[in-house]
Amino acid sequence: MSKVPNSRKWHRSLTIAGGGRNLMDPRQRIDQALERALGRTTAPGAPPLLAQAMRHAVFPGGGRFRPRLTLGVALACGDDAPELTDAAAVAIEMLHCASLVHDDLPCFDDADMRRGQPSVHKAFGEPLAVLAGDGLILLSFQNLAEAAALHPQRLGTLVSLVADAVGVPNGIVAGQAWESEPEVEINDYQRAKTAALFAAATMAGAAAAGGVAADWRILGERLGEAYQVADDLRDVASDPETLGKPVGQDAALGRPNAVAQFGVAGAVGRLKGLIDEAVTSIPDCAGAQALRALIRKESESFLPQALASYAA
Amino acid sequence: MSKVPNSRKWHRSLTIAGGGRNLMDPRQRIDQALERALGRTTAPGAPPLLAQAMRHAVFPGGGRFRPRLTLGVALACGDDAPELTDAAAVAIEMLHCASLVHDDLPCFDDADMRRGQPSVHKAFGEPLAVLAGDGLILLSFQNLAEAAALHPQRLGTLVSLVADAVGVPNGIVAGQAWESEPEVEINDYQRAKTAALFAAATMAGAAAAGGVAADWRILGERLGEAYQVADDLRDVASDPETLGKPVGQDAALGRPNAVAQFGVAGAVGRLKGLIDEAVTSIPDCAGAQALRALIRKESESFLPQALASYAA
Repeated sequence: MSKVPNSRKWHRSLTIAGGGRNLMDPRQRIDQALERALGRTTAPGAPPLLAQAMRHAVFPGGGRFRPRLTLGVALACGDDAPELTDAAAVAIEMLHCASLVHDDLPCFDDADMRRGQPSVHKAFGEPLAVLAGDGLILLSFQNLAEAAALHPQRLGTLVSLVADAVGVPNGIVAGQAWESEPEVEINDYQRAKTAALFAAATMAGAAAAGGVAADWRILGERLGEAYQVADDLRDVASDPETLGKPVGQDAALGRPNAVAQFGVAGAVGRLKGLIDEAVTSIPDCAGAQALRALIRKESESFLPQALASYAA
Repeated sequence: MSKVPNSRKWHRSLTIAGGGRNLMDPRQRIDQALERALGRTTAPGAPPLLAQAMRHAVFPGGGRFRPRLTLGVALACGDDAPELTDAAAVAIEMLHCASLVHDDLPCFDDADMRRGQPSVHKAFGEPLAVLAGDGLILLSFQNLAEAAALHPQRLGTLVSLVADAVGVPNGIVAGQAWESEPEVEINDYQRAKTAALFAAATMAGAAAAGGVAADWRILGERLGEAYQVADDLRDVASDPETLGKPVGQDAALGRPNAVAQFGVAGAVGRLKGLIDEAVTSIPDCAGAQALRALIRKESESFLPQALASYAA
């Protein structure tokens, strides 16, 4: 259930931008890398139900938008260490999945469904859901460390990037914890809950390929903010089947929401502005032009159909 | 509430074994390193209650036995990168604390008390307890990556060691997940739940100081197994105030237990055998003799007073 259509086109073009080094469809490349990484869960001595719960959290998956960004930037930077690129993309996606598993727990959203199937705690019980989330966080780092064997000097940056994006003070865990505070500032909250991992996704792609991570921060941050604003718009515009999760959830839970703050037209304007800034920020490199065009094209699909008239 | 008395003596001797490089009391050194690492939780933009919950999970702490092992081995290996040694010890202890916070959750042990104070979920609620555990796992890696800046070639081993000890297939998370399986083999279970992190504690100490991690595996594994057997013995012999957690818990929860399997005398014999193997395994190095004597002395205190007659 991808939130981003036309993904096949995006993949093919990025593959070409990357010099044709890896002819595999990027979605396939990401899923195969995730599959390999999950191999540890069924190694001798591993508890079988935990393995099933961790797999359930990762497959079939959503749009894989974040790891596709990692791959896209790594390809634009030359992708000279494909195993490390894969591990970076896997870490980004697994950390995202872990956050979804824990967010769905009864003490948070108490969500019955996720990505069109029962949430992990509904399918496997709460203990295995807590452990599956923990296990995925750890697996991200186990996998990164192993993949960095040939490029040890790139590991520190990668570990810092992905761990900071999920931890304190400004990552997903911190963002989620703001919901336990009496007051929350919408920009801090959304930056931590969404933009941080998007920024890590682009920067990790660069770092895995030996590029300069910081040059790719704005691209990820702006796309992450745009994704969050689009999610807020979807929350008011979509029906439950399209989304795969209950509609109006943010309002029901009293969460900060860009539509509530700026109105629909204001939120659409903000979304477009963020995408412009994202595209403009792409640094000059071999694949820059192609990446700019693709991101602009992909981002059009952020806006729900029902709100297309606002985009005029 | 240290489970290991005479710790001051142990600290001082290890400091001398390490060539007097670091004259600070090891417990103090560990607590200061933990304190510095927790600095991120109160950095700008961080949610204050999460910071409090993470601190509550780490301080005042228990015996700090695992990070003291890390420090002890690092000192025996020369401790040539004290910041990295500190980060390794911090990672070991924070991952241990994270596992306690999640194990105490209502869906697992539903423990009201931990280390003589309310458990994290009792003090801060379940959402912040889940997030504090996640945050501590991530902080372990954030801190390691930062501390490895001057020794990037040591980071991969350290990340692998500590992540493997907590993740799948054979770490703490896997051990805890065995409790959700219909059948469990006691040795696999205990190795994953306890011995894995002890083995990582000794190996990480060596790796941080540029030593050969594998040479220190048996020491940690045997001490971890001994610790677990001692815990099982305490579970039947102690009173609640000494332990700080309810007595007879394992039996009540139907967990595998060495005493139930081998009887009290058999478990005591096993404990002594494990300590012998641990001491014998210490590789030759500058501080080997002192470390052997200390570990033997320390380990005497593993056995609950009430069972001392069995040790004859």
